[in-house]
Amino acid sequence: MGGNSIGNLFRVTTFGESHGKALGGIIDGVPPGMKLSEDDLQIDLNRRCPGKSLYITPRYEHDKVYILSGIFEGVTTGTSIGLLVQNKDQHSEDYQSIRDLYRPGHADYSYEKKYGMRDYRGGGRSSARETVIRVAAGAIAKKYLAYRCGIKIRGFIAQIGHIKCELKDWNQVEQNPFFCPDIDCLEALDILIRNLKKYGNSIGAKVTIIAENVPAGLGEPVFDRLDADLAHALMSINAVKGVEIGDGFAVISQLGNENRDEITSQGFLSNHAGGILGGISSGQPVIAHIALKPASSVKQPCNTVTRYGNEVEIITEGRHDICVGIRAVPIAEAMMAIVLMDHFLRNRAQCSDVK
Amino acid sequence: MGGNSIGNLFRVTTFGESHGKALGGIIDGVPPGMKLSEDDLQIDLNRRCPGKSLYITPRYEHDKVYILSGIFEGVTTGTSIGLLVQNKDQHSEDYQSIRDLYRPGHADYSYEKKYGMRDYRGGGRSSARETVIRVAAGAIAKKYLAYRCGIKIRGFIAQIGHIKCELKDWNQVEQNPFFCPDIDCLEALDILIRNLKKYGNSIGAKVTIIAENVPAGLGEPVFDRLDADLAHALMSINAVKGVEIGDGFAVISQLGNENRDEITSQGFLSNHAGGILGGISSGQPVIAHIALKPASSVKQPCNTVTRYGNEVEIITEGRHDICVGIRAVPIAEAMMAIVLMDHFLRNRAQCSDVK
Amino acid sequence: MGGNSIGNLFRVTTFGESHGKALGGIIDGVPPGMKLSEDDLQIDLNRRCPGKSLYITPRYEHDKVYILSGIFEGVTTGTSIGLLVQNKDQHSEDYQSIRDLYRPGHADYSYEKKYGMRDYRGGGRSSARETVIRVAAGAIAKKYLAYRCGIKIRGFIAQIGHIKCELKDWNQVEQNPFFCPDIDCLEALDILIRNLKKYGNSIGAKVTIIAENVPAGLGEPVFDRLDADLAHALMSINAVKGVEIGDGFAVISQLGNENRDEITSQGFLSNHAGGILGGISSGQPVIAHIALKPASSVKQPCNTVTRYGNEVEIITEGRHDICVGIRAVPIAEAMMAIVLMDHFLRNRAQCSDVK
Amino acid sequence: MGGNSIGNLFRVTTFGESHGKALGGIIDGVPPGMKLSEDDLQIDLNRRCPGKSLYITPRYEHDKVYILSGIFEGVTTGTSIGLLVQNKDQHSEDYQSIRDLYRPGHADYSYEKKYGMRDYRGGGRSSARETVIRVAAGAIAKKYLAYRCGIKIRGFIAQIGHIKCELKDWNQVEQNPFFCPDIDCLEALDILIRNLKKYGNSIGAKVTIIAENVPAGLGEPVFDRLDADLAHALMSINAVKGVEIGDGFAVISQLGNENRDEITSQGFLSNHAGGILGGISSGQPVIAHIALKPASSVKQPCNTVTRYGNEVEIITEGRHDICVGIRAVPIAEAMMAIVLMDHFLRNRAQCSDVK
Repeated sequence: MGGNSIGNLFRVTTFGESHGKALGGIIDGVPPGMKLSEDDLQIDLNRRCPGKSLYITPRYEHDKVYILSGIFEGVTTGTSIGLLVQNKDQHSEDYQSIRDLYRPGHADYSYEKKYGMRDYRGGGRSSARETVIRVAAGAIAKKYLAYRCGIKIRGFIAQIGHIKCELKDWNQVEQNPFFCPDIDCLEALDILIRNLKKYGNSIGAKVTIIAENVPAGLGEPVFDRLDADLAHALMSINAVKGVEIGDGFAVISQLGNENRDEITSQGFLSNHAGGILGGISSGQPVIAHIALKPASSVKQPCNTVTRYGNEVEIITEGRHDICVGIRAVPIAEAMMAIVLMDHFLRNRAQCSDVK
Repeated sequence: MGGNSIGNLFRVTTFGESHGKALGGIIDGVPPGMKLSEDDLQIDLNRRCPGKSLYITPRYEHDKVYILSGIFEGVTTGTSIGLLVQNKDQHSEDYQSIRDLYRPGHADYSYEKKYGMRDYRGGGRSSARETVIRVAAGAIAKKYLAYRCGIKIRGFIAQIGHIKCELKDWNQVEQNPFFCPDIDCLEALDILIRNLKKYGNSIGAKVTIIAENVPAGLGEPVFDRLDADLAHALMSINAVKGVEIGDGFAVISQLGNENRDEITSQGFLSNHAGGILGGISSGQPVIAHIALKPASSVKQPCNTVTRYGNEVEIITEGRHDICVGIRAVPIAEAMMAIVLMDHFLRNRAQCSDVK
Repeated sequence: MGGNSIGNLFRVTTFGESHGKALGGIIDGVPPGMKLSEDDLQIDLNRRCPGKSLYITPRYEHDKVYILSGIFEGVTTGTSIGLLVQNKDQHSEDYQSIRDLYRPGHADYSYEKKYGMRDYRGGGRSSARETVIRVAAGAIAKKYLAYRCGIKIRGFIAQIGHIKCELKDWNQVEQNPFFCPDIDCLEALDILIRNLKKYGNSIGAKVTIIAENVPAGLGEPVFDRLDADLAHALMSINAVKGVEIGDGFAVISQLGNENRDEITSQGFLSNHAGGILGGISSGQPVIAHIALKPASSVKQPCNTVTRYGNEVEIITEGRHDICVGIRAVPIAEAMMAIVLMDHFLRNRAQCSDVK
Repeated sequence: MGGNSIGNLFRVTTFGESHGKALGGIIDGVPPGMKLSEDDLQIDLNRRCPGKSLYITPRYEHDKVYILSGIFEGVTTGTSIGLLVQNKDQHSEDYQSIRDLYRPGHADYSYEKKYGMRDYRGGGRSSARETVIRVAAGAIAKKYLAYRCGIKIRGFIAQIGHIKCELKDWNQVEQNPFFCPDIDCLEALDILIRNLKKYGNSIGAKVTIIAENVPAGLGEPVFDRLDADLAHALMSINAVKGVEIGDGFAVISQLGNENRDEITSQGFLSNHAGGILGGISSGQPVIAHIALKPASSVKQPCNTVTRYGNEVEIITEGRHDICVGIRAVPIAEAMMAIVLMDHFLRNRAQCSDVK
C-alpha cells in the first residue's frame, strides 16, 4: 500500500513537497451531515504556522487552506474531501549549496539511497512542511469527535532541554509562544531559546497530548490496538524519536502493585495506564508523550560527504526552528485526533447488536 | 479492517485465546523457494516458552507448532502458510473466581465495555498467550531476512527495575534466564527476582532490539515510515507502554550539534538516530527500546468492582510472571522481523528501474 | 497486501491446498454477541460437498469444520474466529503423472511461471478445494445478516450448456442435484449430464444469486461500490469468467427509456439495475449472475508441453466434476454474503449522526 | 477503508463532484526515475473529453490537468503525485428542477438513502465526471508499463445496440468518433446515433479492452486474482453492468475440450481464457469486455417520486451522452492499466530469490 495514507475508515492521504507547487490531501470517511468550513481548519493551521515569534523560523508561510470537494451547502456529504494549500515564499536558491551534500541528521542520505535521487529543495517530501495537511485533517476529526461525543484533544510542551513544565493551567498554553502550561517556566524558556538563537544551535523537546471524554471501547486488538495506532501516528511525525502511553518508560522501575490502576464504584483511582487497557480505551483520559529531537540545521559546522563520496564540512544555517518541538504541539494533537476518529468509526461498525 | 492482521505485503493474521482450543495464524506473502520447516519456528517458540526457570511462570506450555500449508517438498510455495499451536495444561477453573470481577491493570474492564462480554479464562484474547503465533511468524521473517541479505535481529534485557544491563556480550544473552548481556548484573537480577517472588510482587523492564545489516532504503514515508511501523508493532505487544528509536527520550535535552550523526567516507560517526533517517533505514543498525509494565497479578490485595458495580478487594495470584519483560525479548525480536520483512518486500516493489 | 484476504471490516483470510494437511481460515470482524456453532457452518459445507450424486465428482470429502476460537459459551466474542477443515481421502499418487506437465485450462502453467515451482497435487492452492473455507465464512455472514436485518441470500443454476432454467420455484432448488429451480428442466439436465459423463466431457454453467431484504445504502463509492466488490468476490471463484449485475450484458441493446427503473410511491416498477444504483444498494433485491467455464479435465486427449518444453498429448481423467457450476451455487452465495456483510458494517460506521 | 481509493502498491485516491470547485487525486506508489509531464496525462484526457462531436454531450470540458507534486526536474521522485483538474462551464442552475426529485436510473435515490442528503448538481460525486482523474492516473500507469516491459493497453467499441463491430483495424479506432475498429460499421453507427439524437433517446454499448505483452505471473490468488481485480476495477466505472474475461458468458455452452487452450512449444493455440489462468496472467494478451447501460437521461418522460414521496412525471433532458459507452473506452483502458500496474509491482515484491 502506498505509504502516504493513514487510517482505515477515516483515511487521510497526502501529497506535496516543501518547495513544490502545493500541498494537498484527501480526507475519506467523514460521515455526512456535519457542518464544516475552511475556517474550521484554518484555526489549527494558524496555531502551527511559524513566523509569529522569534522562537520559530521567520519563514512566513501563509497556509490558507481550500476545501475543494465533499461539502455541499456548508455540510459534509459523506464523499471524499479534497484539501489544497499553495506554497509561497520559497527561497529554493538557498538550497543550491546542498544539492550534492547529505545534511547530517536530515533525510537527504536515506531518501537518495531509497529513491536513487531526491528533491533537495528544503528536504522535499521529508520536510515538516508536509504536516500542514495533517493539521487540516486533524481539525476535521477534532470537530467531529467534539460534536459527536464531546472528545477534547489538547497538547502542550512538557519539557525543552532540561526545563520541565507542569500542567498547571490549560488556559496558559495558548497565551505564550511555547504552548507551555506552566507560567513559572516562561522566563527560563525565553532565556534558553534566546541563547540558542544567539549561538545558532537547537534543542529537543517533549510534548504531551491528552484526549478527554474518550468513550470506553476504542481499539481493535490484537494489532490495531489504540495504543499501537497512536504510537504509529505519533512516531510518523518528523523528528519524533519516542512515544509513551501513560507512565511510559517510568513503568520499568515500578512494582505490580504500584502500576495497576485500582477501581472503585466511583471509577479508577489513578491513570498510570494513560487511559488504555489491553489496547482498548478505558474511558479515562488518553495520555501520550512524545520526544522530538533538536533540528539538525545549526550554525556549528559538521562533517559530511557529497553524493560522490567526498568529505566536506558544512554549516546548514537556512531559516530553521530553534525547537521544532514547539510547532509539533498542534501536529501531535492532529495525529491523535485522526487515530481516535478512525477508531471511533471502527468501533461503531463492530458494536454488538445481535442476540 | 479487522484488527487481527499486521503488515501489507508480509501479512500476519492470528486467532486464539489463552484457554481456547488452539492458537493459529496465517502468514501471507512469504516469497516462494525458501526452505522452511517446523523446526525453524520451534527454536524461537522455545525461547519464549515459560517454565524453564523460576523467573517466569511455572505454567508449562508445550508450544509445538504445526505448519499446515504453504510448504511443498520442504520449500515455501508462495501461498499462504497456516500455523497451529494447540492449547494444553489449562486450569480454566482457576478463573471462576474472577468471572465477574475486573482485575485492575488487566484488560477485563475495557474488553467488557467494548464487546459487552468477555472470555474471562486467563484473559481470553487479551492474554500474552496470543504472542505465540507472533513469535512463529517472526521466525519465518527472520529466516528470510537472514538468507536474503544477512539481516540479524537480536534483543536483550536492558533494565529490570533499577538494574541497568549494558550490552557487554551477545553470547551471554542466551546463557542466562534473563536474556541479559551483562554478566555483572546477573547476581543482582537473581536477588531482585527472588525477593519479588518471595513477596509475590512483579516488576517492569526495558528491552532493546537491534537489527544489523539492514540495507538502506526501507520505509515508506510519510506515514508508513519504518520507525512508525516499528512503533506500531512494538506497542502492540502486551504490557508495552513506551517505544524509542535510537536515543529516544534522551533527545529532549540534546543540542542540534550533539544529536546529528556526522558522515565521513567511512560512514556515520555515531548512531543517535537508531539507523533511521526521515523514516527510512540508513544502513546503520536499527535500534529500538521498549518499556514493559509489571504484571498486574500480584499477591498484594487491591480494590476493584464487579460487573455489577459492587466494590470488592481481590488478590489475583494465579501463576504469573514476575517480570513479563523477560519473555518479551523473543516477542519483540519477532515484531521487528515482521516489520522489516514487510518493508523489505515493499521497498523491492517500489525500486526504480525506468529511465 | 497478501492476496489471501478479502473484505475490510469483515475480513476473511484463508490457507490450504487440495492435498495439504488441512484447509483453514480466520474470520475477523464478526460483531460480538451472536450465537454461533459449528453446525451453523456445516449446513452450507454439506451443500457444497461432492459425492452426493453422479453429477459431481465421486471423491468423498468429509468436510467437518472446527471452530477453534472467537466463541465463548456459544456466543461470538468479537475476536477473530479460527476455522479448520482437515483433508482426507487424498490420492496424491494420482497426480504423479502430471508433475511435469501443464494441464491446459488449469493453473499449472501460470502458477509455475509466477512462483517458479508448484504443488502439483490436485492443483495445490489453485484447486476449488480452497472454497471450503469461503463457504464456512459465508455461512457466518449469512447468519449475521439474517438475524440483523432479515437478509436472505440464495442461488440457483440458471443455465447448463444450452438448457436455460427459469426461477419457477425456490423450494425446488434444494430438492434436486442441480440446484435447479425449474422442474421442467430436470429431465433434460439429467440426460445432458449422463451423456457428458459417458463421453467423459464437461460443460459450462450460469449461476444466479439473489439477496432479498438488503437495506438501501450499502456500497462505498467511487471504487468500493457494492457492484464492484461483488464483481471482485464472484470473479475470484474458480472457473468464473463473467459477472453481471441486474440485466448485465443485455443492457448493450437497451434504450435509455427501457433500461431505467421507474419509481412510484409504492416503490420501483422494475429491477433492471439488479438492486444497485451508483454502486449503492437501492433496497430492491440484489441480483448477480456468473458464468462458469467447463472443467478442463476431460477424457478427450489434448496437446500440451512439459516443464522442459517437450510437446506431449495428455488425457487428464482424474475424478472431476462434469459441471463445476453446480457446486458453485453455495460458493457464490457465500461470496455475496461476505461482501454484503462487509458493506453492512462499513455503512453502519459511516452513517450520519452529527448536525 | 474509505471507498475512494483503489490499488495496494499503486494506489489511486480521488475526490471531486460534477459541479464542485475541482476534481483531484493522489497517485501513490509510482516508482522513482520515470520521466513524466502533464502532457503525458493530457493525451488520454483529451480522448475522454466530450464536445468533439455530436455523438457526445456538447458540454465543453476543458480538462487541463495539473501535476502538483511528485515530480522533480521532469522525473518522478517516488513520492505521492497530486493531480488537479478545475471544473468550468458549470450550469448548476440546470439542476434546480431536480433538486427534490429522484431521476430513475441515476444514483439520486440510493445516494440520498445512504447519506441522508445529496449534492444534486449533475449527480455530484456519482457523475461520470469523476472519471477524469481515473484517466489521468491510468495514463501514468500506461506510461510506466510501456517503458518497463512494453505492455500496450488499448480499447475499442465492440457493440452499440445491435450493431457489432469486429476488431479489423486498430488504426481505425482513433480515427472515428466511436472508437470503432470496424470501418464497415461506421455508417450504421452514424445513422443509429443520429436517430437516437433525433428522438432524444440513448443506447447501451459493449467495450473491449486488450493488454498485450503482459508478462506471465501477475495476480495474487486466491482473492486478489488478476481477473477478480480487473472485474472490480471495470465494474466500478459508471454505467457498467457486466464484466467478462476472455470468452466470458460464452463458456456456459462450451464443452471442456472446446474451452481449454492447448499448449505447444510455440505457445498457446487459442486464448479462450483471456490471458488469465487461475487468476494469474499466462503471458497471452489479457482480454476483458464490459457492458454499459444507456444513459438514463432521455427526452421520454417517466414516473418518479419526490424526496417527499409525491409521484411526478419528469423529462431529464440536460446535455447528456447518447451512448456513454463511447467515452468509456479510455476510462476502461485506464482502469485496466491501474490494475496491471498494481499487480506488476506486487509480483515484483513477491518474486522468488532465496534458496
